Amino acid sequence: MALIHHPVVDKNGDTITAAVTSLDLHDIARASKTYGVDTFYVVTPLEDQQVLVERIIGHWVTGAGAKYNPDRQAALSLIRLMPSLQDVLAEMETAAGQKPRVVVTSARTGKSDISYDAIRELAGDQRPILLLFGTAWGLAPEVMKAADYRLAPISGNGAYNHLAVRSAVSIILDRLMGTQR
Amino acid sequence: MALIHHPVVDKNGDTITAAVTSLDLHDIARASKTYGVDTFYVVTPLEDQQVLVERIIGHWVTGAGAKYNPDRQAALSLIRLMPSLQDVLAEMETAAGQKPRVVVTSARTGKSDISYDAIRELAGDQRPILLLFGTAWGLAPEVMKAADYRLAPISGNGAYNHLAVRSAVSIILDRLMGTQR
Repeated sequence: MALIHHPVVDKNGDTITAAVTSLDLHDIARASKTYGVDTFYVVTPLEDQQVLVERIIGHWVTGAGAKYNPDRQAALSLIRLMPSLQDVLAEMETAAGQKPRVVVTSARTGKSDISYDAIRELAGDQRPILLLFGTAWGLAPEVMKAADYRLAPISGNGAYNHLAVRSAVSIILDRLMGTQR
Repeated sequence: MALIHHPVVDKNGDTITAAVTSLDLHDIARASKTYGVDTFYVVTPLEDQQVLVERIIGHWVTGAGAKYNPDRQAALSLIRLMPSLQDVLAEMETAAGQKPRVVVTSARTGKSDISYDAIRELAGDQRPILLLFGTAWGLAPEVMKAADYRLAPISGNGAYNHLAVRSAVSIILDRLMGTQR
């Protein structure tokens, strides 16, 4: 799974680089650990943001936080910092010997949306899956277009579709990888 | 639904009053709005914490934030600040003419856990349901004991059960009130 801070869009649809939110790292790492995600890639090209991510990981994985809260250590150990999505794809391809299937997420409906059940079935074979989440107002159009699959948006029971990315990741991991209902 | 800051337990099982986390209010209000929750009760007996909650609501519901982000306004409008769980119960009983069914949540398994499907069925009748979430290390034992139902914990695909309360609320609302999978 990867949380993308660039390229994402802002309120007006312009491509930006979003700031890293500390709580995104914590909440999403904990959800990743809960649902058995192998690696939680945090993608940002900005050096000062990379320093921030490294500092958080350092504190909780190898520093004082690890002793204080081993459960948090177990979760944040899943984080791997990457400068770009291309680097994530290259690393996954090298590790698995084949390109991952890229699944993008969005709060909006698209023409080619596929269901949660369909993705669960895909997960049955050997080829790894990379699930992408965008910060700010979502993944940039070129990332959406280049993906292999586009997951249907989370629908509650109305038109409101403004979940925090932390909530969206939690719900989607539960739908895709949860075992008991 | 109610997010309880007292009485909850700490790491050692002692009863405490947890501090209000601003992002809990935002994320849980957005999830509540997504899934059609009527009221998101924020329960804290501490006056300084009540001031904090009122300030957040004021900014986003009637202040500058309302214009800046109407979607956030729509979500945070669901928040109702209460000094105690007893006050929540009294208000709900007055409004509905009958006591609500109280459903508690926990990260740990209990003897009398009931399933998500069973709660979905309960929601079919007229009697309102109050779903309780605890901050810190969870709801105090007396709250757990006094409840009508105890919901089964969220299981991922391992033993790790340390989700953020923001994630747990999102997943549980999706399991109980989500319409499409």
